[in-house]
Amino acid sequence: ARPRVGYFLSSKPSQALVAEEIKKIRVGDIKGLPRVIRAGASVYEAIVSMFLEDVGTLMVVDDEGHLEGVVSRKDLLKAAIGGGDLQKMPVSVIMTRMPNIICTTPDEPVLAAARKIIEHEVDALPVVRPVNGQGKKLKVLGRITKTTITNLFVELGEGRS
Amino acid sequence: ARPRVGYFLSSKPSQALVAEEIKKIRVGDIKGLPRVIRAGASVYEAIVSMFLEDVGTLMVVDDEGHLEGVVSRKDLLKAAIGGGDLQKMPVSVIMTRMPNIICTTPDEPVLAAARKIIEHEVDALPVVRPVNGQGKKLKVLGRITKTTITNLFVELGEGRS
Repeated sequence: ARPRVGYFLSSKPSQALVAEEIKKIRVGDIKGLPRVIRAGASVYEAIVSMFLEDVGTLMVVDDEGHLEGVVSRKDLLKAAIGGGDLQKMPVSVIMTRMPNIICTTPDEPVLAAARKIIEHEVDALPVVRPVNGQGKKLKVLGRITKTTITNLFVELGEGRS
Repeated sequence: ARPRVGYFLSSKPSQALVAEEIKKIRVGDIKGLPRVIRAGASVYEAIVSMFLEDVGTLMVVDDEGHLEGVVSRKDLLKAAIGGGDLQKMPVSVIMTRMPNIICTTPDEPVLAAARKIIEHEVDALPVVRPVNGQGKKLKVLGRITKTTITNLFVELGEGRS
């Protein structure tokens, strides 16, 4: 029989080790590029931008690039069947608005970010940092999505992460 | 110093163990319920159904429940801005159709299913089994989505899976 090491004496040692490895990974290690649109853009422009960039969620920013809102494919679909003029409707009318946006930061463990995605039933989180001396304004650094997490899962399963 | 066991002598032992644990999980262990719509339904009905069931992908089935197609939120958004009459347009016109659907089976490792999601850039895979004696017909047993994978990642990170 192999000698047993203290660390591996718990009833499910490998599970604990998997959890420990996952907890080490930070948002900053795997975040994707931010995909943004200006708050003044129309819903129609947001839809076109979503197809061109092939993303499911766009971050809505002001002229200085600070986070104002988030708009999902679901929000756009709802607007598209609503019967309004999509070229005249500003995206700011249908977006989820600050301070109701669930965000993450580069230092947060990816596990915590993934938990936010599940609990708040969103597809993506903006990765942000506070803007120095500007109160609650947030600069958008990137995004973490269900695709990012699925990709990380594949890398972990292949022993690449 | 702790005694070392052969298994843990590789240069990145914990990574290998994480990969090994992930490889053990099968699609059948974590699949979600299928969300289906009949091929005769309209695009409008598909959109309503997607909102009511709060899913991003619907499986399109024939009268016997066999897989005919898959329709995503992206397909519906494209149709919604296309200007047609959504109540008259059958969902079968816009769906991805057999045999072009990427599927998985209960016995497949989740890792392989997750890889399919990433490689084929889809949000969800139908979990299927062949129908006995009916050629290429597939019965829909469930679904694996990026949400399923994100949820599994959270469970692994919390030591629950």
